Amino acid sequence: MTFSCGVSERMVEELYLNINPLQTAGKTHAETRKAIFSWIDGYAVCDACKGSLRTMDKPPIRAFLADVSAFLGMEDAMLTNGAREAKFAVIHSLTEPGDWIVADGNAHYSTLVAAERNRVDVVRTATAGAPTYEVTPEHFAEALDTAEDARGTPPALAIVTHVDGSYGNVVDAAGIAKVCHDRGVPVLLNTAYSTGRMPVSGKELGVDFIACSAHKSWATGGGNAGILALSGAYRDRVLRYSVDNPVKPLETLGCSTRGSAVVALIAAFPYVRERVSHWDREVAHAQMIVKMLEDAGGFFILGTRPKRHDLIAMETPAYDEIAKTHKKRGYFLAKDLKACGIVGIKPGRTKQFKFSSFGLTDDQARYLAETFIDIKDRYDTR
Amino acid sequence: MTFSCGVSERMVEELYLNINPLQTAGKTHAETRKAIFSWIDGYAVCDACKGSLRTMDKPPIRAFLADVSAFLGMEDAMLTNGAREAKFAVIHSLTEPGDWIVADGNAHYSTLVAAERNRVDVVRTATAGAPTYEVTPEHFAEALDTAEDARGTPPALAIVTHVDGSYGNVVDAAGIAKVCHDRGVPVLLNTAYSTGRMPVSGKELGVDFIACSAHKSWATGGGNAGILALSGAYRDRVLRYSVDNPVKPLETLGCSTRGSAVVALIAAFPYVRERVSHWDREVAHAQMIVKMLEDAGGFFILGTRPKRHDLIAMETPAYDEIAKTHKKRGYFLAKDLKACGIVGIKPGRTKQFKFSSFGLTDDQARYLAETFIDIKDRYDTR
Repeated sequence: MTFSCGVSERMVEELYLNINPLQTAGKTHAETRKAIFSWIDGYAVCDACKGSLRTMDKPPIRAFLADVSAFLGMEDAMLTNGAREAKFAVIHSLTEPGDWIVADGNAHYSTLVAAERNRVDVVRTATAGAPTYEVTPEHFAEALDTAEDARGTPPALAIVTHVDGSYGNVVDAAGIAKVCHDRGVPVLLNTAYSTGRMPVSGKELGVDFIACSAHKSWATGGGNAGILALSGAYRDRVLRYSVDNPVKPLETLGCSTRGSAVVALIAAFPYVRERVSHWDREVAHAQMIVKMLEDAGGFFILGTRPKRHDLIAMETPAYDEIAKTHKKRGYFLAKDLKACGIVGIKPGRTKQFKFSSFGLTDDQARYLAETFIDIKDRYDTR
Repeated sequence: MTFSCGVSERMVEELYLNINPLQTAGKTHAETRKAIFSWIDGYAVCDACKGSLRTMDKPPIRAFLADVSAFLGMEDAMLTNGAREAKFAVIHSLTEPGDWIVADGNAHYSTLVAAERNRVDVVRTATAGAPTYEVTPEHFAEALDTAEDARGTPPALAIVTHVDGSYGNVVDAAGIAKVCHDRGVPVLLNTAYSTGRMPVSGKELGVDFIACSAHKSWATGGGNAGILALSGAYRDRVLRYSVDNPVKPLETLGCSTRGSAVVALIAAFPYVRERVSHWDREVAHAQMIVKMLEDAGGFFILGTRPKRHDLIAMETPAYDEIAKTHKKRGYFLAKDLKACGIVGIKPGRTKQFKFSSFGLTDDQARYLAETFIDIKDRYDTR
């Protein structure tokens, strides 16, 4: 059985190990699926609504927002349609068209597009370049000081990618936040690949906003959901209410994620809280896979070392060599992986690609590394 | 069995007739539920993505957008997170802070909040007031001309509520669009309560934008989904792309409704298309219920006549009399209805309330009217 082209059938997680970094930490648990199924119809969360989604007790959205704020070490939280909508809301609240903000050189495109939609320039920091692509507090200091000298005004905001989606680097968020705050710049931490997977405390890191992707990292599945957690001096500039409709938060147009998606998020939260406490196991799997691949030869890990995240990017010249003569060209790799029960890398890519080991068992993590190595060896005719 | 306060269980549609106007046309079919369940995990729609959600063929989003544009008599369509986000996107694209727009006197709060978030004033038309609350092309002409005289500039946009959520009035959208276009004002039709329930052709009505609520009226369930259909001279000002990321539509931040919600919308579309062709049956049910209630006495229908929509608002002084002496006060009505298997009206309301007969069978529609009458008669001690 293969992927369906239509809409009635998709059996990826049931039949394969899906190592797509976008998807590994968004998989739902049985209880979450049950909750989604129970709450799917129409505006079901509105059954008992008195006008304000964020203060609802049936389902327990008010309690969830309090719990999740505490979980993230922040003072308050809003439901959003996703991490990108959370970033847009903060930029929209803190900037005027023509302002500028700073973002790291590994920022996701949605950070840039959220700024562009607000007609705000983005100055991006340098990175250390290949092979680590590291972004440091010093990169931020340099970008902030140079751009402020050139532009004459300070930036309205810094958006810091906690863990980037290209290399899985975990930045020194506390160090970067200090550099920004020393210059009077509020800090939004984009945690699409961190909160929900690994422990994150906004208080310890000293950030003003945390944007979370429920579908990417909170085991919430594919409804649209995100969280914007807020603290400190800029909180009320973002979590502000309509003048004429004073229970409706302006930046979420009253209600944001308002159906089974928020129910899924609430249902998944106990699992997420528990799994975050086992982050060391996820890091150990990633480090084991990296070691096995590097010991085998022909695999070069990109990003900072030691590996501290499940998102693993690598250069694979060995595969690229095979692609040159293989009748399926670069597509052999995705095909061979699929034959071994593994999906989720971009078909056609052999020079460099990324994958995620999140949520694998010990045996699955080992099997994944062994399969990568076996496929390389299979074509080794030397 | 009753509603659960937690998140794991909600059995409203299975156990009751739910007449909440927000929800009646959002109920999912079995095939849609199956599709949601298959596609729920993480960013499942991204399995085969090449960078652009709106041109994806697996699942068939590209084909769906073409089909839905044609179905609505428009030239193009975008996926949004909901109708309010569609309205926000159009206002954001066509206005500057300080501009003003016009909206009808029955506009939903989300229209007003979407304008406020854009720092745009809203001039609202008058209505005919009680009992019809009708909004006519003349009301729009008067508001446009008076406000333009006072402000010195024309409005940037008119937002017209096709069917309002308070009285279920169907406006003369073609007549209103003509009044607006005669004055050079683009028209956005808010169809949260019309498209997906009843036939709507943007071409026939002569509107520039149509905002649709998938969860409210497209049998799509509770993921967040909406549609913005576009035509004419202003289309490319809204459906515009990022300069640096040219496959990413700016107003949806690249991807909007990006999980199982869009799959649900696609899966539901064949059912929606079919049911829209039976709109006359829905109108007949509403008219039958209105006639039965008015013949029984003590029920006064609000809104325009004849009834042309399933959303029915009524004044019920008879219930209000009962509430004065009932030990449960106004809550008796919701309790009595629930005992008869009917839920979805606001508990405590007896003076005036609204409900929807959408999707009921002939027998269910008759039962609903009879139950309203029975409850009134039950307490009639005269």
